[in-house]
Amino acid sequence: MKYCSQCASPVSQAIPEGDNRLRFVCNNCESIFYSNPKIVAGTLPVYQGKVLLCKRAIEPRYGLWTLPAGFLEEGESVRDGALRETLEEACAEVEIERLFAITSVLHVDHIQMIYLATLPEPVFASSSESLEVALFDEAEIPWQQLAFPTIAKVLQQYFADRSNNHIELHENSWDGLNKRWS
Amino acid sequence: MKYCSQCASPVSQAIPEGDNRLRFVCNNCESIFYSNPKIVAGTLPVYQGKVLLCKRAIEPRYGLWTLPAGFLEEGESVRDGALRETLEEACAEVEIERLFAITSVLHVDHIQMIYLATLPEPVFASSSESLEVALFDEAEIPWQQLAFPTIAKVLQQYFADRSNNHIELHENSWDGLNKRWS
Repeated sequence: MKYCSQCASPVSQAIPEGDNRLRFVCNNCESIFYSNPKIVAGTLPVYQGKVLLCKRAIEPRYGLWTLPAGFLEEGESVRDGALRETLEEACAEVEIERLFAITSVLHVDHIQMIYLATLPEPVFASSSESLEVALFDEAEIPWQQLAFPTIAKVLQQYFADRSNNHIELHENSWDGLNKRWS
Repeated sequence: MKYCSQCASPVSQAIPEGDNRLRFVCNNCESIFYSNPKIVAGTLPVYQGKVLLCKRAIEPRYGLWTLPAGFLEEGESVRDGALRETLEEACAEVEIERLFAITSVLHVDHIQMIYLATLPEPVFASSSESLEVALFDEAEIPWQQLAFPTIAKVLQQYFADRSNNHIELHENSWDGLNKRWS
């Protein structure tokens, strides 16, 4: 951020009164600009034990596989965002079962919220955001071609929970700079 | 938003190529500015069956009671944000038990995430953000002086779950313009 979005004057970084963090502050009108993590909402769709993955048609990680997910929009609940992204990326209408994983992706300020969902019929398609969409058995998951370690983690947790017959909510934190889970 | 934060030129609202929503777009450098919901992270702290509430020392809803919660910051996990806000607003160090409620507050684009937490000792204090901090039995909750309907909802859900001996994750959506839950 270089200029104030209210008055076009230059901004600088300063700790506002009563605050304890650096914020962008306008040198002229004193507007304060806060920047906060964004929610990435999505689903882990399952059809007869197989998981639906999308091959990314956009950067970053073009050509690698991921779960259908994307930024939550204004005016939208987290569930509605997850359903919309699944429809946009995989052309799939799923039924949400439960919230499965919340992953704080610290180095990029994303909070990834993935719902376990049922795909009632094997109806899906590629889209402007996905080169290919396909169902994978556990043994077929392209672990080496997954787009994000956070998605690999959630898939591992899902298959582990499934084999234990005990699905639970997982909370993960991933610091991609230091390659560290907590 | 009136001006581009990158080049100080005027912005206008337009649907970028490949998108389906109006965004602020710079008329000069073509930067696109996305606006997304913010996470409000907090806790429902319990000490020997009593709930810790804070009387707000800041607007909006100055002088009304709420749970300790506030905006998640960059570089922070949701849990860490909830713990930090509890410390800042109630000077209380709590132990998180589990995620209890996710409330999409649609008209203000907040996603409120409240953890059930244990306050191990009755140690808390007012702060620059809270005029007063106090423990309340269920029968003492100041229902008519609560700051937000979303906080009233979460407290109702907590006491209902507790009386049923079954704590679960609640997902709520509140449209404050139309006064409607979904």
